Amino acid sequence: MSGSLLIAWQLKDKHVLVVGGGQVASSRVEHALAAGAIVTVVSPAQGLSEHTKSLIATDSNYNRILFRDRTFLSTDLDDADMVLAAIDDVDLSRDIGTSCRARRIPVNVADDPSYCDFYFGSQIRRGPLQVMVSTNGKSPKLANIIRRRIEDSIPQGAGEAIEKVGLLRDKLRERSPQVGGEASKRRMKWVVELCTSWEMDDLAGLDDVQIERLLNEGWERDVVPSRDSFVDDDQ
Amino acid sequence: MSGSLLIAWQLKDKHVLVVGGGQVASSRVEHALAAGAIVTVVSPAQGLSEHTKSLIATDSNYNRILFRDRTFLSTDLDDADMVLAAIDDVDLSRDIGTSCRARRIPVNVADDPSYCDFYFGSQIRRGPLQVMVSTNGKSPKLANIIRRRIEDSIPQGAGEAIEKVGLLRDKLRERSPQVGGEASKRRMKWVVELCTSWEMDDLAGLDDVQIERLLNEGWERDVVPSRDSFVDDDQ
Repeated sequence: MSGSLLIAWQLKDKHVLVVGGGQVASSRVEHALAAGAIVTVVSPAQGLSEHTKSLIATDSNYNRILFRDRTFLSTDLDDADMVLAAIDDVDLSRDIGTSCRARRIPVNVADDPSYCDFYFGSQIRRGPLQVMVSTNGKSPKLANIIRRRIEDSIPQGAGEAIEKVGLLRDKLRERSPQVGGEASKRRMKWVVELCTSWEMDDLAGLDDVQIERLLNEGWERDVVPSRDSFVDDDQ
Repeated sequence: MSGSLLIAWQLKDKHVLVVGGGQVASSRVEHALAAGAIVTVVSPAQGLSEHTKSLIATDSNYNRILFRDRTFLSTDLDDADMVLAAIDDVDLSRDIGTSCRARRIPVNVADDPSYCDFYFGSQIRRGPLQVMVSTNGKSPKLANIIRRRIEDSIPQGAGEAIEKVGLLRDKLRERSPQVGGEASKRRMKWVVELCTSWEMDDLAGLDDVQIERLLNEGWERDVVPSRDSFVDDDQ
């Protein structure tokens, strides 16, 4: 049995075309916006769900959603980097799928796997942390049950901890900007030791002042202070 | 802060070009094969890691890997549905990235995010169950720690349970082949009730005879037998 290749597709400032405005379309819009895309929704206004309407209304100041109150036209594909179709019209869905394939635009047609370059799974998001659970179409319900167990297993501060370690790594690269070789190995080793010896909640609790102190008293002296010693110093 | 769109890319019988033969390349080859792809590895033989060599050698009877003992040529892109570059040559990497963009072939260039349409995350696989953890590049180490916690939280029989429920849904569709509407709602409701009222280990333990019985005594009578009553009957 073969599975899928799970990947994190980059959509920052890319154009995503969502065809349809119902419940499924609204979830597509949300995912695309969360990934940083510029979204065009094509759907007759009467086909919009409340959720889609509110997403469009909320966006008014940010210009991340363009709404076209009409049915799909093939010219809509012209500037699309990705197409997500979520309409009930099976024939139109397949036309869209076929046109996208011909133009090599990545496409997902809801409820029609044979016209999909990719599927969506059950998703978790906590700040920069993203998790996807896929059962390769075999059981969405079990995917859901497993997703919930996974949610419970993710430490409370995980999203925040990742954010802080990301910040720390940025500052480390400023202090030690060499790419590759020994410098990058030493940076990696220090960060790995910090991540393994500190609890996630402690990493999550780091503020800017503490991050500076960690770099001065830890990185510069080539040690990773224990969280306890670091906190005690603080008092 | 924007993230990624996590998706399950479909590679069954698609052509994946892996440029390079080292450690990273070998992991790309494994992922692509597991997703059902036909893989071409382009690399001078002296650049192959032991792992890549063994993947190529193991494949000899299946014809899922084609090995080209030479450096990359632009004609390698001609039949590629996806390109994964994992070589040390920064300039060649970028050339490959640029050519893929021009031809709209999805591409990942190892260690060069700006030439990547997508990234890989930390992955878990248990049969048809696949999970990916991404920290959007902020902390691979924390992604790893979280992946291990998630692995512990996934019930032992999860992969097997998904396989069995997938089988059950196939047989259900044979008995009740209507697409959409009431029939598909009734099927979905019955499967959801089964998945929520039975433990994952019990679902995992279903054999073909029991699946037939479940359909005859459960589905046909519009009930979901409790696992206990079902097992008791068996004795």
